[in-house]
Amino acid sequence: MEAEVNNRVFFPTHLEEALRETFLEADTQGRGYVESKNIVNVVRKVLGIFLTHTEKAKVIAKAEYLATKGLLSVEDFFTIMADTLVETTHWGNLKTEIAGYVGIDTLQEQIRKKVLKRGFEFNIMVVGRSGLGKSTLINTLFKANVSLRSCSKSEEKVEIAKTTHVKSVSHVIEEKGVRLRLTVTDTPGFGDQINNDKCWLPVLDYINEQYENYLSEEQSVSRKKHIPDTRIHCCLYFIAPTGHSLSPLDIEFMRRLDRCVNIVPVIAKADTLTVEERTDFKQREMLPFAVVGSNQQYPVNGRTVYGRRTQWGLVEVENKGHCEFSDLRDMLIRTHMQDLVEVTRSVHYENFRHERLASRRGRTQINGQVIDMDSMNESSL
Amino acid sequence: MEAEVNNRVFFPTHLEEALRETFLEADTQGRGYVESKNIVNVVRKVLGIFLTHTEKAKVIAKAEYLATKGLLSVEDFFTIMADTLVETTHWGNLKTEIAGYVGIDTLQEQIRKKVLKRGFEFNIMVVGRSGLGKSTLINTLFKANVSLRSCSKSEEKVEIAKTTHVKSVSHVIEEKGVRLRLTVTDTPGFGDQINNDKCWLPVLDYINEQYENYLSEEQSVSRKKHIPDTRIHCCLYFIAPTGHSLSPLDIEFMRRLDRCVNIVPVIAKADTLTVEERTDFKQREMLPFAVVGSNQQYPVNGRTVYGRRTQWGLVEVENKGHCEFSDLRDMLIRTHMQDLVEVTRSVHYENFRHERLASRRGRTQINGQVIDMDSMNESSL
Repeated sequence: MEAEVNNRVFFPTHLEEALRETFLEADTQGRGYVESKNIVNVVRKVLGIFLTHTEKAKVIAKAEYLATKGLLSVEDFFTIMADTLVETTHWGNLKTEIAGYVGIDTLQEQIRKKVLKRGFEFNIMVVGRSGLGKSTLINTLFKANVSLRSCSKSEEKVEIAKTTHVKSVSHVIEEKGVRLRLTVTDTPGFGDQINNDKCWLPVLDYINEQYENYLSEEQSVSRKKHIPDTRIHCCLYFIAPTGHSLSPLDIEFMRRLDRCVNIVPVIAKADTLTVEERTDFKQREMLPFAVVGSNQQYPVNGRTVYGRRTQWGLVEVENKGHCEFSDLRDMLIRTHMQDLVEVTRSVHYENFRHERLASRRGRTQINGQVIDMDSMNESSL
Repeated sequence: MEAEVNNRVFFPTHLEEALRETFLEADTQGRGYVESKNIVNVVRKVLGIFLTHTEKAKVIAKAEYLATKGLLSVEDFFTIMADTLVETTHWGNLKTEIAGYVGIDTLQEQIRKKVLKRGFEFNIMVVGRSGLGKSTLINTLFKANVSLRSCSKSEEKVEIAKTTHVKSVSHVIEEKGVRLRLTVTDTPGFGDQINNDKCWLPVLDYINEQYENYLSEEQSVSRKKHIPDTRIHCCLYFIAPTGHSLSPLDIEFMRRLDRCVNIVPVIAKADTLTVEERTDFKQREMLPFAVVGSNQQYPVNGRTVYGRRTQWGLVEVENKGHCEFSDLRDMLIRTHMQDLVEVTRSVHYENFRHERLASRRGRTQINGQVIDMDSMNESSL
């Protein structure tokens, strides 16, 4: 079937000529062959400057597969180019010229209308021991009472849970016609015990359960047109502002969960760190955002700003000189929200899926027949 | 697992109160129950005006499933609302208010940048007997020599194929930074034989083969991040301008293929139809576009226009008074190109997938164990 896909795309005359010409140029000795170790340069010459790392690796792999004694014929080169052109839209020098306005640029607007109609989904999780200001920060980020604590009556009296619980609350917020379903998942009880051994396990289980649900729906014979996405797109991990760098639990959590979810570490209540402590902390570890959250507003120079007023002064939340709240907010919402969703889908979920299916296959392949013993998965293939 | 998804989303206090209030209003007799046949109205009241046909059907199905003697309790109502809210982003009256600018509207721009970087794909097929101007029309649509015939040397001498062949050619065209990989698939030999019995079969096979390739890649354990899309997004079907409505072959083709691909019927060389013939044709059948294609340009009132000059005058291709070319072009490229891709994915491909998997399952389910006998599909699950 792979061959089928390649066969069907053949080159228009002008492309074939351009390719043949490039090949002849590269074949400096006129042997009708080029050395396979030079193939990347030949391909790059055809495509112009565009060739990503992955594309390059694929070209090399194909060339190695096709080469005879390290040499590639013009037919081999055509095969490599056909494969490459199917997988990229960076055709560089091989573009077909058009003789006037066609209207392809309207595709941007067509896409924009479509996603606007459908709305967006973002699932964020907050993890960290109690008292670090998780609820306040999440409310400050979205300028609304979106945190779990702000939304539940029964938990107004905060009692420390005996184990780590995972609970979610969903909201729809709208701005200039753009609708976002925001789900905030909290993990009360995390890190609050005398023995915090494996307190990250319920968090990991929850994250994997969402992947499992998605996979199960994706594989079911009668699947939904739009699969509800409950996968966690971002996990805000709260580090205590002790001035002593990461605790063993911090390290354990990030080590365990980094492979399956986007973790954004934040130093909570960063106003309690001295300048030296903060610099010291950030030099030693990877870059955590040192942030302060607040839903109290105060007047400053005629404007009203969110801040924390202490005995000695006012920390302004959105003042970049005071803390990195606005950097965090910009990254999470204004520049990288869609990236976080995309990486969750294309990296973390795909990794989960690959491992899950590979292990399922390994377990169930008997004498060349695939036998699915897993009665839990009747809805899947 | 279904229950798991529902459990995890619970209502913020203000939502729960709003829902309870709406329920109490609907429970006019104060029995603590509402009649299940009224549930759609109650749900609609909560959501505002938004409730699509599908959403409505789902609400009714859930209500029927939960109702006891035609009555629903407030808990049943909460369950229905939880399910409904997970599947829609039209939360109408249940929106969470935000206290200032957060930046969610930037999501449109984030998406736009992302798709622009990735580029677009569009696969169009032309079907119809030879001499109807298929190549000319497709070249006129994209203002470039994109048709199969324009791109192949060997076929400059057009010989009529003995059977229907299916061949494709790919191009990249770019306009204002928007890149589109356009694949034009032609079907030489279609309708050109003495006996045209089943000449649509190679076309159907080709379309299904692309679905099969996609499905196989989608299901493979190590699948590509971006699956190359060779599925036909639109099939332009050329009707001869006989003035006698559809031929039996036209009817047979559309009947057979309508279920698996987006067909856009066009009356080719519509300049040969009289005004009466054209009106008559369009009254009898569903709406085919009556079009004229040309890559010849002529001066008209100081401008240069594409047209066909005949003994008696000039037919202007893009003149809406002369033919419907510009309507067809606008629909295909400027307003509905993304829709055609979307419908192919969410309707035609999903139908194919469902039938394919259901039949595979039916065939292989033995004594409750799923045994995959299909050795052709080793790469799939």
